[in-house]
Amino acid sequence: MGNSFGTIYKLSSFGESHGPAVGGVIEGCPAGLEISVEKIQAELNRRRPGQNALSTPRNEADSVEILSGLFEGKTTGMPIGFIVRNTDHNSSAYEHLKDTYRPSHADYTWQQKYGLRDYRGGGRSSAREHISRVVAGAVAKQFLALKDIKINAYTSQIGDITLPISYKELNIETIDNPINCPDAAIAEQMMELLKTVRAEGDSVGGCVSCVVRNMPVGLGEPVFDKLQARLAFAMMGINAAKGFEYGDGFAVAAMRGSEHNDTFTLKAGRIAPLTNHSGGIQGGVSNGEDIFFKVAFKPVPTIMREQQTVTMQGEPLTLQAGGRHDVCVVHRAVPVVEAMTAMVLMDALLADKIGKI
Amino acid sequence: MGNSFGTIYKLSSFGESHGPAVGGVIEGCPAGLEISVEKIQAELNRRRPGQNALSTPRNEADSVEILSGLFEGKTTGMPIGFIVRNTDHNSSAYEHLKDTYRPSHADYTWQQKYGLRDYRGGGRSSAREHISRVVAGAVAKQFLALKDIKINAYTSQIGDITLPISYKELNIETIDNPINCPDAAIAEQMMELLKTVRAEGDSVGGCVSCVVRNMPVGLGEPVFDKLQARLAFAMMGINAAKGFEYGDGFAVAAMRGSEHNDTFTLKAGRIAPLTNHSGGIQGGVSNGEDIFFKVAFKPVPTIMREQQTVTMQGEPLTLQAGGRHDVCVVHRAVPVVEAMTAMVLMDALLADKIGKI
Amino acid sequence: MGNSFGTIYKLSSFGESHGPAVGGVIEGCPAGLEISVEKIQAELNRRRPGQNALSTPRNEADSVEILSGLFEGKTTGMPIGFIVRNTDHNSSAYEHLKDTYRPSHADYTWQQKYGLRDYRGGGRSSAREHISRVVAGAVAKQFLALKDIKINAYTSQIGDITLPISYKELNIETIDNPINCPDAAIAEQMMELLKTVRAEGDSVGGCVSCVVRNMPVGLGEPVFDKLQARLAFAMMGINAAKGFEYGDGFAVAAMRGSEHNDTFTLKAGRIAPLTNHSGGIQGGVSNGEDIFFKVAFKPVPTIMREQQTVTMQGEPLTLQAGGRHDVCVVHRAVPVVEAMTAMVLMDALLADKIGKI
Amino acid sequence: MGNSFGTIYKLSSFGESHGPAVGGVIEGCPAGLEISVEKIQAELNRRRPGQNALSTPRNEADSVEILSGLFEGKTTGMPIGFIVRNTDHNSSAYEHLKDTYRPSHADYTWQQKYGLRDYRGGGRSSAREHISRVVAGAVAKQFLALKDIKINAYTSQIGDITLPISYKELNIETIDNPINCPDAAIAEQMMELLKTVRAEGDSVGGCVSCVVRNMPVGLGEPVFDKLQARLAFAMMGINAAKGFEYGDGFAVAAMRGSEHNDTFTLKAGRIAPLTNHSGGIQGGVSNGEDIFFKVAFKPVPTIMREQQTVTMQGEPLTLQAGGRHDVCVVHRAVPVVEAMTAMVLMDALLADKIGKI
Repeated sequence: MGNSFGTIYKLSSFGESHGPAVGGVIEGCPAGLEISVEKIQAELNRRRPGQNALSTPRNEADSVEILSGLFEGKTTGMPIGFIVRNTDHNSSAYEHLKDTYRPSHADYTWQQKYGLRDYRGGGRSSAREHISRVVAGAVAKQFLALKDIKINAYTSQIGDITLPISYKELNIETIDNPINCPDAAIAEQMMELLKTVRAEGDSVGGCVSCVVRNMPVGLGEPVFDKLQARLAFAMMGINAAKGFEYGDGFAVAAMRGSEHNDTFTLKAGRIAPLTNHSGGIQGGVSNGEDIFFKVAFKPVPTIMREQQTVTMQGEPLTLQAGGRHDVCVVHRAVPVVEAMTAMVLMDALLADKIGKI
Repeated sequence: MGNSFGTIYKLSSFGESHGPAVGGVIEGCPAGLEISVEKIQAELNRRRPGQNALSTPRNEADSVEILSGLFEGKTTGMPIGFIVRNTDHNSSAYEHLKDTYRPSHADYTWQQKYGLRDYRGGGRSSAREHISRVVAGAVAKQFLALKDIKINAYTSQIGDITLPISYKELNIETIDNPINCPDAAIAEQMMELLKTVRAEGDSVGGCVSCVVRNMPVGLGEPVFDKLQARLAFAMMGINAAKGFEYGDGFAVAAMRGSEHNDTFTLKAGRIAPLTNHSGGIQGGVSNGEDIFFKVAFKPVPTIMREQQTVTMQGEPLTLQAGGRHDVCVVHRAVPVVEAMTAMVLMDALLADKIGKI
Repeated sequence: MGNSFGTIYKLSSFGESHGPAVGGVIEGCPAGLEISVEKIQAELNRRRPGQNALSTPRNEADSVEILSGLFEGKTTGMPIGFIVRNTDHNSSAYEHLKDTYRPSHADYTWQQKYGLRDYRGGGRSSAREHISRVVAGAVAKQFLALKDIKINAYTSQIGDITLPISYKELNIETIDNPINCPDAAIAEQMMELLKTVRAEGDSVGGCVSCVVRNMPVGLGEPVFDKLQARLAFAMMGINAAKGFEYGDGFAVAAMRGSEHNDTFTLKAGRIAPLTNHSGGIQGGVSNGEDIFFKVAFKPVPTIMREQQTVTMQGEPLTLQAGGRHDVCVVHRAVPVVEAMTAMVLMDALLADKIGKI
Repeated sequence: MGNSFGTIYKLSSFGESHGPAVGGVIEGCPAGLEISVEKIQAELNRRRPGQNALSTPRNEADSVEILSGLFEGKTTGMPIGFIVRNTDHNSSAYEHLKDTYRPSHADYTWQQKYGLRDYRGGGRSSAREHISRVVAGAVAKQFLALKDIKINAYTSQIGDITLPISYKELNIETIDNPINCPDAAIAEQMMELLKTVRAEGDSVGGCVSCVVRNMPVGLGEPVFDKLQARLAFAMMGINAAKGFEYGDGFAVAAMRGSEHNDTFTLKAGRIAPLTNHSGGIQGGVSNGEDIFFKVAFKPVPTIMREQQTVTMQGEPLTLQAGGRHDVCVVHRAVPVVEAMTAMVLMDALLADKIGKI
């Protein structure tokens, strides 16, 4: 339980931070899809640590090996097994954490739940687990490309610096700064903030926004599996996520119906809503407009300051973090948000194929 | 797809607003649980319309009939089938909407997805579908009561009126006002606002907050099925929900790690976090502290004002709503939020029973 | 667990022999399918008891009520809830069995597993549970009829009387004898045998054979979900089933490859096997030939003779059955075998729709 | 679809005969189980080809690499990822089969279903896929050993040579002949037969029987997921299986109730059936007696004789097999039958843990 995602298009993921490899099995990818392994690798490279001053110095190739399910460059309908070897882990750096419950980490809860835990680098609670998601998302993106569906996530907040402009006025497709913010000036401010936070030995939170364009009408299921529910599930399953909203989000609480409603009209001969307060989904099903949503991420719990905690035996301990750590994970979550979105949409697209006779 | 919820404890729900009945099948409830049907009915009564000036005048008994799975007052381990007859529907009032796409309703998307739709009272997109959730949640609550787990939701925002006080300073267990707000003075303001909004022929949004107390440690699964992901999925599947946050929620984006971290300490000889910024969950697994989260609901899309829209044939139409409608659904969502929470927790509790040898 | 069947086309079933009703929820039926409720009722009538001298005198209308999912005679894509009221149960006839473990019934194992049981009429272990399967199968048959797929089961053995002729030489579509055997003379012998067995106060077993014609190529999934594995699962889940074989079945054990292989040839310009030892499935996937399989059913465990057994308290007891009982269930299993087959094939057909891009 | 097995204890399998590796992900194994990787390897060695004159000369180490889910020799509750590299494949030997539909193989149906296929060594339709099952079964066996549950399969028929004695009179735990038959004399005859068949350029079928001893009472679920239904599903999903029966199997068709019923009695103070015609299962749930069942396997379709077939283009072709092939798969299916049984039982054991409060 807990390690599989999706209903038709499905990832079964495995692997710990300091084990031999992370990987997974992708089921439900239709036969006949041309797959570029280079594109999968490119997505992994976006998430990869050690690329610039912003992220952890852990430097791994994160090179994917596809073990099955492809033949002459196409999917065969059979499961796609894959692994990414862990190459740069230094487990001895974690030896001293063996008995320690780090604040706001999974140490305490997992130890209680399972009676034991792989403490090396956080084991499976490490964000290194996200690698499998990125691979499965990269395959899904290649499926969605057949319909020209575009998914673009970006950093919209770091600490108290927020991106004040709508995605419609920005180029969100080619972002070339390490913080993954589509506004160069705001990106600069964010990166400055990270330097400050690092200097303070602290960490900081933020938000990732995501936009899906060229959406077909009809994706999503009624009642429990509304498209927004699946997206929320996907996003809140990413490490450190604390909140999800779509369309007008939490702002709707203060709105009137007359203000929030998207009245229908004809656009180029096609029925479509005039506005998009709904964020592209009505009754749990996509209406063809852009889908947009936002995810809040907490500050990384590992900080370079002394913290009080206790050991497994309940003895007080002053913790001074060592090891290699990001001061902020928000920008590295960007490809993960896209990957999870791609998996949700591919699953919805396949489900929709069997929705009517 | 879309009409089943849960993994071990599972509801398969059915029914339309104006069909003969709504109902469901509950699977995975362990044998030997004493069930009070009165308690199930009491939860349905909390959600039932027509109870006071705040809600739609539709007046139905919403009386549950249990069809299977109980014997001499106890569960047998067999599925619990149940129905609630629809008795007060007036389908002719919807006849004129047959070809109309109401703004921000499911009409357009469902018609496109399925090629046809039951337009009477919104068919299955009606909030009347929530009845089945309340029944399954009421059974789950009786299971959770064995462990003394308490779930209490309440209205924390209506329009621009927000409840400014923490749940810790309020009695959230016995709320005796129709708006379901635990602060009597704020409740009064909220109800005044609803009168104004109704007079304006408009509708308004709001928020429901939910608190779970007496939580055991260890509920929730790693990676995709983190407890917060399951809760987000459950909440975002409720009609009209637009946002979900838990613990410090969206506020974490502006926080530092040193501020957000919950350091561990000893409380009454037991290891526990000193603060609860995490909202009771770490690494996807409950840590024994209170779980708290908030859900934003949009304003009801049906308003008593003229709205522009189009017909299925794409012809412009000025819509003037008739029928019976709530001006706000937030307070009626309170028992639904509790029911979905109860189902998620019961499912997690059962899963945890098989987590270790 | 245990009460849902299917992956895409899915039945969640409920109900006990002596409870208020049996019923279920059907999910995954595509929208837009015209449904004849009369055809569903006709299938129920085939299974219904009390129709002739062969079956139990329990006489119930077994009248189905559809509660949701249909609109103007068509499926809407929403779940189809249905119930069949139990009307003729006489629970007091079972009061004396409250503490008794009847031989080869579910009494002992269910009591041990669940700690309690609904002993009235066998509770949910009663074959009355098959009603829900027949309803879901009757819906599936109407879907399969779109592709002209035909499913016909028949009684091929009762006791030591076996039908010696292949289905190809018989009319298996319109069988008009109560024992459901397509050869009138053999049917007569079988019915004679049942009279003898009844006179002896005993019961007898038999076999049901099933043939699927007009099969498309491509149904079934590789590895675990081979079409034959799904069929075997479906059949062995019917009460009293003890064996399943398809194609040449157990006889293959003594065959040589040169004898069993179906060589390919051209039939009317289409590639097809020359023979059909494989029973229409190769590599887990249908090859377009007829699918045929056989299911063995044990004799009804309730017999009208004295039997030794023990009570729940372990005290010896001489059991003399009362109540109303079939002397043989084989012929009544015929519509159930067809129903389960229809569900399996509909599920496979829907799955196949998403097998390639 | 098709590549995952199990409900709680679950294997997601991948890999083709001539790809880089076969492998899988095991989910749902409780934390804290001591795992001997040597025992896993030992089970793989039982299935491994090239060990003696009876099996294909393909000689591979079939060495398993565990990639996750173990820490200090124990399961952590996290998924167990594993791979077995393919080392001795010779794909060029299959190049000439690229366009050929071999009789009674998956070539035709898979090509039709997916529009393309990996023809090298049969791709994923190869019995090499069984490796993943053996690994997951070997883990399950270590779990079942905690309860002393013993699973032993053996060859009970090859061609027309059948084992005439009950398992109760044989030592089925330590069989030391390559044909896996517990009677040395019969084993000798079977092996002689295989030599003859090989000399004839033909292949032959057979049966595997399986016995489970020390079974607890209460495993299995009602209605659809009866223990026998799960076992039948598991067995009929093994390559080449054509029939399944348990207890008295197909013989029940000719039996009377008075003959087949297992009357209850007291054995050593415990309630138990006096006989075991039921094969250890009643009402879908284990009754504590030995479970026994039999599986029929067809002759290997690849034979060393000329066969007529057609190409993908529909042109007639005389096929003369090359490559390396078993003349019989029955004895090599023995560890696979055990593995599938172990997975079913472990799944049932975990499900039973949450069957009552």
